[in-house]
Amino acid sequence: MPTHHFEPSNYYTTIGSHEPVLQIAPGDSLLTTAVDAGGRDTTGERITPGGNPMTGPFFITSAEPGDMLVLHLDRITPNRATGWSSWGVDTALVDPWYVPELALPDKDQPWEPAIWDIDNSAGTVTLRTPQTKLGRLRLPLDAMLGCFGVAPEDGQSISTATSGPYGGNMDYRGFRAGVTVYLPVFVPGALLFLGDGHALQSDGEIGGTGVEVSMQVELRVDLIKNKTIQWPRGENADEIFTTGNARPLDQALQHATTEMIRWLKDDYGLDALSAGLLASQAVTYEVGNVFDPAYTMVCKLKKAYLAQFA
Amino acid sequence: MPTHHFEPSNYYTTIGSHEPVLQIAPGDSLLTTAVDAGGRDTTGERITPGGNPMTGPFFITSAEPGDMLVLHLDRITPNRATGWSSWGVDTALVDPWYVPELALPDKDQPWEPAIWDIDNSAGTVTLRTPQTKLGRLRLPLDAMLGCFGVAPEDGQSISTATSGPYGGNMDYRGFRAGVTVYLPVFVPGALLFLGDGHALQSDGEIGGTGVEVSMQVELRVDLIKNKTIQWPRGENADEIFTTGNARPLDQALQHATTEMIRWLKDDYGLDALSAGLLASQAVTYEVGNVFDPAYTMVCKLKKAYLAQFA
Amino acid sequence: MPTHHFEPSNYYTTIGSHEPVLQIAPGDSLLTTAVDAGGRDTTGERITPGGNPMTGPFFITSAEPGDMLVLHLDRITPNRATGWSSWGVDTALVDPWYVPELALPDKDQPWEPAIWDIDNSAGTVTLRTPQTKLGRLRLPLDAMLGCFGVAPEDGQSISTATSGPYGGNMDYRGFRAGVTVYLPVFVPGALLFLGDGHALQSDGEIGGTGVEVSMQVELRVDLIKNKTIQWPRGENADEIFTTGNARPLDQALQHATTEMIRWLKDDYGLDALSAGLLASQAVTYEVGNVFDPAYTMVCKLKKAYLAQFA
Amino acid sequence: MPTHHFEPSNYYTTIGSHEPVLQIAPGDSLLTTAVDAGGRDTTGERITPGGNPMTGPFFITSAEPGDMLVLHLDRITPNRATGWSSWGVDTALVDPWYVPELALPDKDQPWEPAIWDIDNSAGTVTLRTPQTKLGRLRLPLDAMLGCFGVAPEDGQSISTATSGPYGGNMDYRGFRAGVTVYLPVFVPGALLFLGDGHALQSDGEIGGTGVEVSMQVELRVDLIKNKTIQWPRGENADEIFTTGNARPLDQALQHATTEMIRWLKDDYGLDALSAGLLASQAVTYEVGNVFDPAYTMVCKLKKAYLAQFA
Repeated sequence: MPTHHFEPSNYYTTIGSHEPVLQIAPGDSLLTTAVDAGGRDTTGERITPGGNPMTGPFFITSAEPGDMLVLHLDRITPNRATGWSSWGVDTALVDPWYVPELALPDKDQPWEPAIWDIDNSAGTVTLRTPQTKLGRLRLPLDAMLGCFGVAPEDGQSISTATSGPYGGNMDYRGFRAGVTVYLPVFVPGALLFLGDGHALQSDGEIGGTGVEVSMQVELRVDLIKNKTIQWPRGENADEIFTTGNARPLDQALQHATTEMIRWLKDDYGLDALSAGLLASQAVTYEVGNVFDPAYTMVCKLKKAYLAQFA
Repeated sequence: MPTHHFEPSNYYTTIGSHEPVLQIAPGDSLLTTAVDAGGRDTTGERITPGGNPMTGPFFITSAEPGDMLVLHLDRITPNRATGWSSWGVDTALVDPWYVPELALPDKDQPWEPAIWDIDNSAGTVTLRTPQTKLGRLRLPLDAMLGCFGVAPEDGQSISTATSGPYGGNMDYRGFRAGVTVYLPVFVPGALLFLGDGHALQSDGEIGGTGVEVSMQVELRVDLIKNKTIQWPRGENADEIFTTGNARPLDQALQHATTEMIRWLKDDYGLDALSAGLLASQAVTYEVGNVFDPAYTMVCKLKKAYLAQFA
Repeated sequence: MPTHHFEPSNYYTTIGSHEPVLQIAPGDSLLTTAVDAGGRDTTGERITPGGNPMTGPFFITSAEPGDMLVLHLDRITPNRATGWSSWGVDTALVDPWYVPELALPDKDQPWEPAIWDIDNSAGTVTLRTPQTKLGRLRLPLDAMLGCFGVAPEDGQSISTATSGPYGGNMDYRGFRAGVTVYLPVFVPGALLFLGDGHALQSDGEIGGTGVEVSMQVELRVDLIKNKTIQWPRGENADEIFTTGNARPLDQALQHATTEMIRWLKDDYGLDALSAGLLASQAVTYEVGNVFDPAYTMVCKLKKAYLAQFA
Repeated sequence: MPTHHFEPSNYYTTIGSHEPVLQIAPGDSLLTTAVDAGGRDTTGERITPGGNPMTGPFFITSAEPGDMLVLHLDRITPNRATGWSSWGVDTALVDPWYVPELALPDKDQPWEPAIWDIDNSAGTVTLRTPQTKLGRLRLPLDAMLGCFGVAPEDGQSISTATSGPYGGNMDYRGFRAGVTVYLPVFVPGALLFLGDGHALQSDGEIGGTGVEVSMQVELRVDLIKNKTIQWPRGENADEIFTTGNARPLDQALQHATTEMIRWLKDDYGLDALSAGLLASQAVTYEVGNVFDPAYTMVCKLKKAYLAQFA
């Protein structure tokens, strides 16, 4: 199967039915790059305005509304040695009375991000900024894509600040290399967008950024015809998972849980009783983001359990 | 240090300033039992009404309001071979329009739980009930206490259905053997209650029950004088964690996150800037429960990160 | 029917199964007083600790669990000429990023409330405090009870900071003189508590206080045997209404709406289709409070509509 | 000032930067029509697909980002004698366990709406559908626009199912004739859209529809240059009001309350202390909708209070 090499020259900060930049057939691979959330490329230069600029859209041959797009995330690798982040927890994620205790940035000073050194071979992300008591804090590199998805339903063009059934700015740590993602298709060609790489992030992206960095991305595309799903799904080596994107977190959890039950019924031969009983004792959850306009909650189930009856 | 053996003869379904059953000094251990959430003991017989009946309260010598109670959970072991559970996901945890698709119990029939075999030596929990397509589904035993805590603030007596700053029905999978728990003290003697053992549960306890079973519990008590915390804290071999108990999940997350930042500032030598930056890139979350009147969200941080600067 | 005059000498800050202070038969009236939320009486002197101290409990003759208590609120009148309030909107009720823009009190200074003059005959509440640009702002007197209810289910004693199916700190402006309130009975004698008078408040009690003042209260008690309701109900001259007490506001609204549909089906001869259609086009909502641990949402329906078919 | 008569021939179900149909200068009036939410015109014929099809967009001469658009809603009149509605309360707005008690439509039958007779001269909306126990229920006509707004920020095109800072599907009963609305401008020309007329609706639009009907609409446009607002504002004869559009209702309330405080500071000469104190004792709230993806909460303040100091 061919691998398409694509170097983007313009970027979108909405996900919608924009002019495709390349056509890719199911089975093909795509090797491309993504600038960071602030529009900075592999050299650190700002080449496009910030706000999660997207590479794409890619037209997937023969994809039609009602199909399911499959993305094998084969490689997500920082392509520069420095990332940046915010300085602390967003005001919305602590108790309201505690907001005055946060170290909020001085509004009269120009804002500068915290800087982190990224070492792909050592697998580390190390704090470079000297202003804190954390010294050269070293965290494990865990590269991921914060924002990707397909053109949404109803002819919409939606800001890359948020997310929905079409994917978007889910900011979930689990979208790392080795994972397979499933997305609903709403328009002919699906129109795939991707960007917003993080060298790592907390659960919830509670500072409003991960360690933001430009990326090299390689993925293989597949297509399942006439397969309707309602929310992005995925799987890694050990688990299948579903995502719900909404506010509040309670509703995101409802979406993800409902999608998991549907999956169990549709693809694993379970009736409502069996799917409900399995889910009720065996699922786990992960928090994607609790910062963006839509939050993301992920519902997971171990493949080892599914293997017992499927 | 002595170990107190205590066999309960009466139980409470509120957590409040009830008459203590035993006095325990800091440093002492307690070996006792807890009936299951339905009031059934090691023989499976219902010996007290259901609704998370509690063993206790235990009066901790010299504990005063403003102190912090320490519980080393040394043993949480099912003391019978059979547990029970609900049949599926609660109506509140799927999309509202999907509720009619759930396999809801027939209201005209007496309700019978699903039954599970518990094997402590094999470390398994195996579905016995034959009505499903799951066969003899076998899940890993992961025994925990769903409900424990101390008498709450303001002289309240609060149902064991819910939780708060004092602990209570948090239904968090992480309260398993090997964990140390920290609780605020609101009344003289703290007044410790415990019960509601689960052989396992999903994140969120989304069916409204885990695999409910009576337990043998052994814990060692300690006390830190004049140490004020606002929410239950804990630690396991790898992580420290904080819990927030509230609705909606967003507020529970705010409580847990705020408590984590306070902990970092109070005990790990960090200023607001450093604590915020560390939390914003490094915390993870776990969902305790999303079924009880108060939900429980847990904020976690790896000790390996803390060891770099503390 | 007799009117019982009762002057309280001690107060409770939990609502629970405390020793009754007086027995009242259905049909009887009660004329009593309530200190303000801070424990200050008609002279302005603090005679009991603050935190919504309650007058009562009153034992209602023959009230049993499963009955419905009826309270005719005949008089709620400030019995002193001065009330107090907080200074502004609580941090939880603005956008989190806007919290630093609020005029938060200086934590290093002792807190003093804003002071208001209350004129019962003129029907006005006038700002006395000179520190603002509002001058002698004059608002209409609209006296109400912020907190009242009966002993809750399951033997609980619950702080007067919050509310539930038993009533409690609902802080709803609509609980004014002329209104009839319906409460579920959970314990023998119902055990009625009341207090927390406001000369007025905003919807939502968004500052955390109304204009707090001690009150003279007269009410007539009735009892409907074997009438089960799930949430406090009420009616005024023009409307029937139901209250839901929970967090978040979305859940409080669900409770109130569900209770309204039940009421329409139980007492107005409607089937599910008719009750749903009427509610879906004709209800209005009022926000009780969005400050207390449980929020209060009120669902209302005009009696003029009900009169067309009932 | 001229009145532009405009008869739409095509409609949009997204609000975005679409080709303008007419240019209108500040001070001019517009007299136009809107099909109902299902795309049916004054004859009842479906002339465009449903989903809140919009009339417009109208280009407002000299409107630039950072200006404030003013709409005087002079006339909102049903232009046919029949409206339609859903049959009951949506599943999301009752307690989840109560969903099975609702009269949900039979999924195997084609869905038919409930039908209502609209009499503009009598000012009534009367149930025609005979299937209920409500007979010929007669409710007061209270015509309004459910959905209107300007092209949103960031080049987005957003479904008319939802709402945001730009307006959209707010479904607030208070957007009736006689009201003046203020909207932020995000793109040159503002690009005004309008539609989704209701002969009446409940607070919350809890059935998912009002009594849906095509409308004749007349409005006068004005423009305030260099006036930045963050959420739609409005005023009627007695009150000023702000709207917040978000989920959950708690966040919509935060947005509306924050916008009210900003308005008091910007235009009424109040400092933070005074604005906060006034709001905290004097605002009321109305629920716009609790059905759409974004809920709408309205914060109101009486002009009579403002007149005392402004």
